[in-house]
Amino acid sequence: MHALWEFRGLNTAAYPNSQRTPPPLDYMFHSRSVAIVGISADLPKIWIRRLYLDSLLESGYPGQIYLVNPKGGEMAGLPIYRSLKDIPGAVDYVVISVPASYTPKIMEECRDIGVKVVHVFASGYAETGEPDRIELQNRLVEIARQGNIRIIGPNCLGIYYPGGRIGLIPDFPMEPGPIGFLCQSGGNVAYMVRHAVARGLRFSKIVSYGNACDINESDLLDYFAEDPETKVIAAYIEGARDGRRLMEALTKAASLKPTVVLKGGYTAGGSRAAASHTGSLAGADVVWDSLLMQAGTIRVYSIEEMVDMLVALLRVKPPHGFNICAVGNGGGASVMATDELEQAGLRLVPIPGEIREGLKEFIDLANSMLRNPIDVSPLATVVGFEYLSDLGSRRFTELLREKAAKGPSVQWARVNGLLKDWPGLDMVIFHHGFDVSPMPLSELMVNCIVGPMVLAARACELPHAVVLHSMANDNTWQSSAELRGLCVEFGLPLFLSMRGAAAAIRKLIDYNRAYPDRLATLHMSL
Amino acid sequence: MHALWEFRGLNTAAYPNSQRTPPPLDYMFHSRSVAIVGISADLPKIWIRRLYLDSLLESGYPGQIYLVNPKGGEMAGLPIYRSLKDIPGAVDYVVISVPASYTPKIMEECRDIGVKVVHVFASGYAETGEPDRIELQNRLVEIARQGNIRIIGPNCLGIYYPGGRIGLIPDFPMEPGPIGFLCQSGGNVAYMVRHAVARGLRFSKIVSYGNACDINESDLLDYFAEDPETKVIAAYIEGARDGRRLMEALTKAASLKPTVVLKGGYTAGGSRAAASHTGSLAGADVVWDSLLMQAGTIRVYSIEEMVDMLVALLRVKPPHGFNICAVGNGGGASVMATDELEQAGLRLVPIPGEIREGLKEFIDLANSMLRNPIDVSPLATVVGFEYLSDLGSRRFTELLREKAAKGPSVQWARVNGLLKDWPGLDMVIFHHGFDVSPMPLSELMVNCIVGPMVLAARACELPHAVVLHSMANDNTWQSSAELRGLCVEFGLPLFLSMRGAAAAIRKLIDYNRAYPDRLATLHMSL
Repeated sequence: MHALWEFRGLNTAAYPNSQRTPPPLDYMFHSRSVAIVGISADLPKIWIRRLYLDSLLESGYPGQIYLVNPKGGEMAGLPIYRSLKDIPGAVDYVVISVPASYTPKIMEECRDIGVKVVHVFASGYAETGEPDRIELQNRLVEIARQGNIRIIGPNCLGIYYPGGRIGLIPDFPMEPGPIGFLCQSGGNVAYMVRHAVARGLRFSKIVSYGNACDINESDLLDYFAEDPETKVIAAYIEGARDGRRLMEALTKAASLKPTVVLKGGYTAGGSRAAASHTGSLAGADVVWDSLLMQAGTIRVYSIEEMVDMLVALLRVKPPHGFNICAVGNGGGASVMATDELEQAGLRLVPIPGEIREGLKEFIDLANSMLRNPIDVSPLATVVGFEYLSDLGSRRFTELLREKAAKGPSVQWARVNGLLKDWPGLDMVIFHHGFDVSPMPLSELMVNCIVGPMVLAARACELPHAVVLHSMANDNTWQSSAELRGLCVEFGLPLFLSMRGAAAAIRKLIDYNRAYPDRLATLHMSL
Repeated sequence: MHALWEFRGLNTAAYPNSQRTPPPLDYMFHSRSVAIVGISADLPKIWIRRLYLDSLLESGYPGQIYLVNPKGGEMAGLPIYRSLKDIPGAVDYVVISVPASYTPKIMEECRDIGVKVVHVFASGYAETGEPDRIELQNRLVEIARQGNIRIIGPNCLGIYYPGGRIGLIPDFPMEPGPIGFLCQSGGNVAYMVRHAVARGLRFSKIVSYGNACDINESDLLDYFAEDPETKVIAAYIEGARDGRRLMEALTKAASLKPTVVLKGGYTAGGSRAAASHTGSLAGADVVWDSLLMQAGTIRVYSIEEMVDMLVALLRVKPPHGFNICAVGNGGGASVMATDELEQAGLRLVPIPGEIREGLKEFIDLANSMLRNPIDVSPLATVVGFEYLSDLGSRRFTELLREKAAKGPSVQWARVNGLLKDWPGLDMVIFHHGFDVSPMPLSELMVNCIVGPMVLAARACELPHAVVLHSMANDNTWQSSAELRGLCVEFGLPLFLSMRGAAAAIRKLIDYNRAYPDRLATLHMSL
């Protein structure tokens, strides 16, 4: 595999012997002080301040924060030093956000004052493909080696560690969670966190590592494999230079924790794009595919799939087999849901006669489908209006919270009871497509129809998932917002498309069969 | 193909000779009067009122509206007759929304008073699979035949004809458009219209035809093929009883107008579900696949794909070939966009050297990718802050409308100019994933970054599309709402996922190559 990740004029020399030994990787999350070089009040640079100063201030970073800009001055009540060398205390961790050409000089200062970790935010290095820019990156590595400094980047967003009160983008939550994420792209950190948070997921640590001139994907995989705060590993990787090392790191990580990998640049054009983005040598996709499979990772192809997979791993009780029952509202929606599920290799077997008879006792045959899928539309009216009459002046979500404490409605409890008695049924998927409603959509309507189903999902003893989809217009998106929030609050596995849910659940079952102990270990650790 | 759509105890006899001839299908859209049987003030039945009375009143239906319920009374200022026979004027079109068991009696009254078209909204017929319910449906057909009445349904939503002021769901727009939609499911009418409208599409006529006991998919395809108000045909079909007739109807329709088909129930389970939903005999998917291909239709697999395909057909200037340039913000986002496009069979060939040099003149090498894909991130700051300084007290969308009249910013005009000179480039895709932003998202931020790109797309002379994606959380959805609205207002082909855009554009090119005159004919007719 050497030819696929070959050396391309980049300095990847090992650390030389030196009077200082490089710090362990964990050190980057536990620095005593941070200096932000290139902080500026200029309008176009406001985001440097927002990302690296405001985030730390708002998250309550416990160490010292130092600001550096040759112009001096002050910001947010902190003095701005003209040089790193002017800082009175020890500087452990430096964020460099100045144009690339100025960075070797800053790096030399870092070396001279004994900095341990440097995050080079700046871009315009090897990823441009320009010889002088490659040389510039090599120069950074060379200086860092002299001082045994570890480099994150260049061309990356750096770290996010909510448990250690290191914020990043100011709208990221500061509550920690089980997911460790290594991400070669900075934008994909934002993309991933925002989507994941909307589904109730949280992160232990994130490292955006860009051009990987020093700290690379394998280092980070090794780190997350051992990190006690990380229970699941997610990785967005555009390329690697040492295939053998990556294989070892992936195999070790995946053997200890479920590891989900999104390989950016898996097509010919995507591979060229990856080279242009992070200077990565992307390699042939067939090699990546077998590498990722042999290492025991779970491969996904988009951030949305990544989030779906993490929801499945962390929230779905693993089903034993492929037999699914889909329960929802709407005939066409039920037909299409079935197609999506079966297309992913799941199976909707016909409903046993006695269960159908049981459903017929309290669900009208008109406007329903009492087979598999089950279209429970008549319940929406019956239970919905019952809830509506209990509503009073409360918000619907308040009512649903109260009702949740007492369990689902009588009718939904009967549905759950009948499904539980279905021999060989492995999983129930509760689904609703908001736009399917023949009534003009309103928050009240949405809650009436879907709210009782969400409570049923919450009480369902079989493995289950909730799919709330069809929100591609403003009205349905807004009407459904509180309800999606409630699913997250209840800890339900929430998916936003049936296709996404089907793919993730199928992969979950396959994974659990291939590695029978891994999910059990994960769920015990949470 | 007979065995696939075989008779299953359902009455499909041809019209007998009778003193009255059945009306042409077009009649259903031009009735002089509508009677709604089963109207009720009871709370659970409020949606019958909303769908069939309020919609007609709000849309300004020009004919007479009559209400019927054995209890009598009045509603919305109209008397409620106790029986169809009590109505003083001629009744052309009847909506029946009473429980299935009462419908034969109503149908007899329709026959006796000379009704021409009956829409049976009620369900609980052949789709249940219960022998007595199949018999009930046969009975309806039998009575209708006696009076040469055409039946829409049963188990369906009926018709929507904005041009004739026949509304359906009260939130549907009353502005007509080019799409004729036949839809075996009622819910999928709602699903489709709401998604399509959010993308700027409008409909000529829609017929939800459910169990198709009389008017079926082939009748409707024949109708839409000839209908001068319909320029593109969309169909959601769960099954058919006469394969030969369907093949003829599809072939004819597709030869006259682009015809996009979503076959509901294409998996084994989905096929069973279709039987349970509309009593359809779904048939083997391999047969459907060759039928749909041989007939020259475009096959899609979800409502979302259907809407994407219609956007492509109606809004995208057809590219000659597969060579695409992707222009957007974000490195990882650009890599993933490339993968999605190439995975769909499109190609991002390397940028010619002179065009790269041209871009380098005004786009910083740092934080950009000046190859293909092109990551124009530096422009977001430069142009965004320029627009911001012009904003004053206006809303950003107002500013963008004003700027649009004058053309894009200088920088974006240069991008367009350089791309225009790229030999062999077939199409430009402008894309932005909202969640990729390293800044906390706000409406202002979104408009600053993406607004100038939307104006560039509007001015782009090459075939182009706009992909605005990554909005799976409440903040980004809301922040991007006005901007999506502006794209629609500008008539831009707007897609909400790169995967969806890629699939639709690929199919558009394939379609245009297979049938070189059809898109030209379509675009001339619009």
